[in-house]
Amino acid sequence: MSIPDTANTNIDQNVIDKNVAQAQADAANPAIPNDNDIARVRAFLVDLQARICQALEAQERKGGGTATFVPDDWERPEGGGGRSCILADGEVIEKAGVMFSHIHVHNLPASATARHPNIAGRRAQAMGVSLVVHPKNPNVPTSHANVRLFVAEAEGEDPIWWFGGGFDLTPFYPVLADCVHWHQVCHDLCAPFGDTVYPDFKQWCDEYFHLRHRDEQRGIGGLFYDDVNFESRGWDFERCFDFMKAVSNGYLDGILPIFERRQDTPFTDEQRQFQLYRRGRYVEYNLVYDRGTLFGLQSNGRIESILVSMPPLASWHYRFEPSPGTAEFELTDYYLKPRDWLNL
Amino acid sequence: MSIPDTANTNIDQNVIDKNVAQAQADAANPAIPNDNDIARVRAFLVDLQARICQALEAQERKGGGTATFVPDDWERPEGGGGRSCILADGEVIEKAGVMFSHIHVHNLPASATARHPNIAGRRAQAMGVSLVVHPKNPNVPTSHANVRLFVAEAEGEDPIWWFGGGFDLTPFYPVLADCVHWHQVCHDLCAPFGDTVYPDFKQWCDEYFHLRHRDEQRGIGGLFYDDVNFESRGWDFERCFDFMKAVSNGYLDGILPIFERRQDTPFTDEQRQFQLYRRGRYVEYNLVYDRGTLFGLQSNGRIESILVSMPPLASWHYRFEPSPGTAEFELTDYYLKPRDWLNL
Repeated sequence: MSIPDTANTNIDQNVIDKNVAQAQADAANPAIPNDNDIARVRAFLVDLQARICQALEAQERKGGGTATFVPDDWERPEGGGGRSCILADGEVIEKAGVMFSHIHVHNLPASATARHPNIAGRRAQAMGVSLVVHPKNPNVPTSHANVRLFVAEAEGEDPIWWFGGGFDLTPFYPVLADCVHWHQVCHDLCAPFGDTVYPDFKQWCDEYFHLRHRDEQRGIGGLFYDDVNFESRGWDFERCFDFMKAVSNGYLDGILPIFERRQDTPFTDEQRQFQLYRRGRYVEYNLVYDRGTLFGLQSNGRIESILVSMPPLASWHYRFEPSPGTAEFELTDYYLKPRDWLNL
Repeated sequence: MSIPDTANTNIDQNVIDKNVAQAQADAANPAIPNDNDIARVRAFLVDLQARICQALEAQERKGGGTATFVPDDWERPEGGGGRSCILADGEVIEKAGVMFSHIHVHNLPASATARHPNIAGRRAQAMGVSLVVHPKNPNVPTSHANVRLFVAEAEGEDPIWWFGGGFDLTPFYPVLADCVHWHQVCHDLCAPFGDTVYPDFKQWCDEYFHLRHRDEQRGIGGLFYDDVNFESRGWDFERCFDFMKAVSNGYLDGILPIFERRQDTPFTDEQRQFQLYRRGRYVEYNLVYDRGTLFGLQSNGRIESILVSMPPLASWHYRFEPSPGTAEFELTDYYLKPRDWLNL
């Protein structure tokens, strides 16, 4: 199964359309990507999707499962498309979706660009990989990651672009060492990009994944960033792309050791029930707060791709209130509060 | 367990405060409720909650279940409170919540009154009964009902008031005769109030319970109304109250025969799985569209009361697409589209 051709066709058309002199000027300015730069990001993302699927399938095999990722290619009438890879009903992974998409918009509406009024009317492309993994064993956390690039172009003008992404962890029965490991990975991948990067993007993550109506964090956080470009951080395109690569690899460095340590831990039916109950919070977050989900629902996005983040099974109970001293109580009382995990 | 006293205390205070001459003038105008009228609505709602719980428990007994409604009284710091009655893990009813609330606001913020700018700054009370019933057997539909009264008062001025409410049915394996019965009950309860009432409020219900992102109805509808008062329909307070009573009784007249007919129908594990999958749509509707839920989440409402409408268990599957000709296909292909059920 191949990636839809639409996206490639549009890129070629852009190349043809582009004023050659402008392209040469751009090439001299490392803050301005040319079409080759954008194609390199795309190639990285396509490969990233395959690597993540392989790594997760390897965990599934280690747990005796035979479930595989099934690719589902789709095209978008307005332009672009994607490949959603879904693994369902595994022994280790109950449900996972690893999605690549590359979307084209011919004329950005003003409503879509509140934060960036200067891009209204431009043509744009957005590409990214996003994923959610819902393990079966409540001792393995649910995890989410996302890396993306947005570029808005206009004839005779410099492209406006930025990177965004991050990853976060939602444990049910957290182990402190795992939480520290997760944030250590976050810290270490950020370190080459400056001392403020980890604290900035860690805090952004805590603020973003907050269920206001419960005054509860979705999980123990990780990294979240958006609008990263030369203007905002002084990073040229290549450095931003390097950061995308570091975050992408960081997700695997973070999650795979946790699978290794926890996927064979025995669990009780009560723990399974608690996992389903806590997954209800994941649903609440995604449908009430998550900007990507809400934007997708409001903009006639591809519903099945947007809602692939939903857990396979979730429950709600009226006033479920765990007793102090239990692991279930500790989860909300200790873990689901913003913490400086590397300086406890 | 008694209903919190806060609400009664406030009513008494209002009586004392009220200008006697104004009260006499109000008594002569049947479009203006006095405190006794409001107290009668409250008494009706308190009794209604008890009647509905009894009727649903009787169905649970008929199915061999012993689960009962457990009352949970609560008070709201700002004024008022309520009683939530919850039945969980029954044989017939997997989860039901029947909630009475009577809320006081001392000073309505302008933001809460977009549709009624003339009530900003007034003191107000809102009272109602709302309920959601999630049966265990997929052959019995999920049902929802809600009746409420809102009154905004200001010293020396006529109160501004309106009624709202309705009920709707969400089947998983619909039977045509049940759908017709449900809408016949809706039609018949509306008939004494005028020929346009059923078509108006039936259409309002279809428009309200629509999942735009799926282009799908939540269920087969029923009745939905809001802002019903003398201004909007020429009904005085007593007639509006009579309509509240008719809707309340109509819910029981509609749902109990469907329980009787379907609660003993055998079902397969596949049908159960489909029910859980369809309950996911109920979650999507409530968290993405339902105005009551969203207002509650945004206004620091009592979360457990607001989210008691969530199903006990729900599932999501990527691109679940039933085959034409199956009951599962018929559900969305035929039943979950607005229809004139009484003239098929």
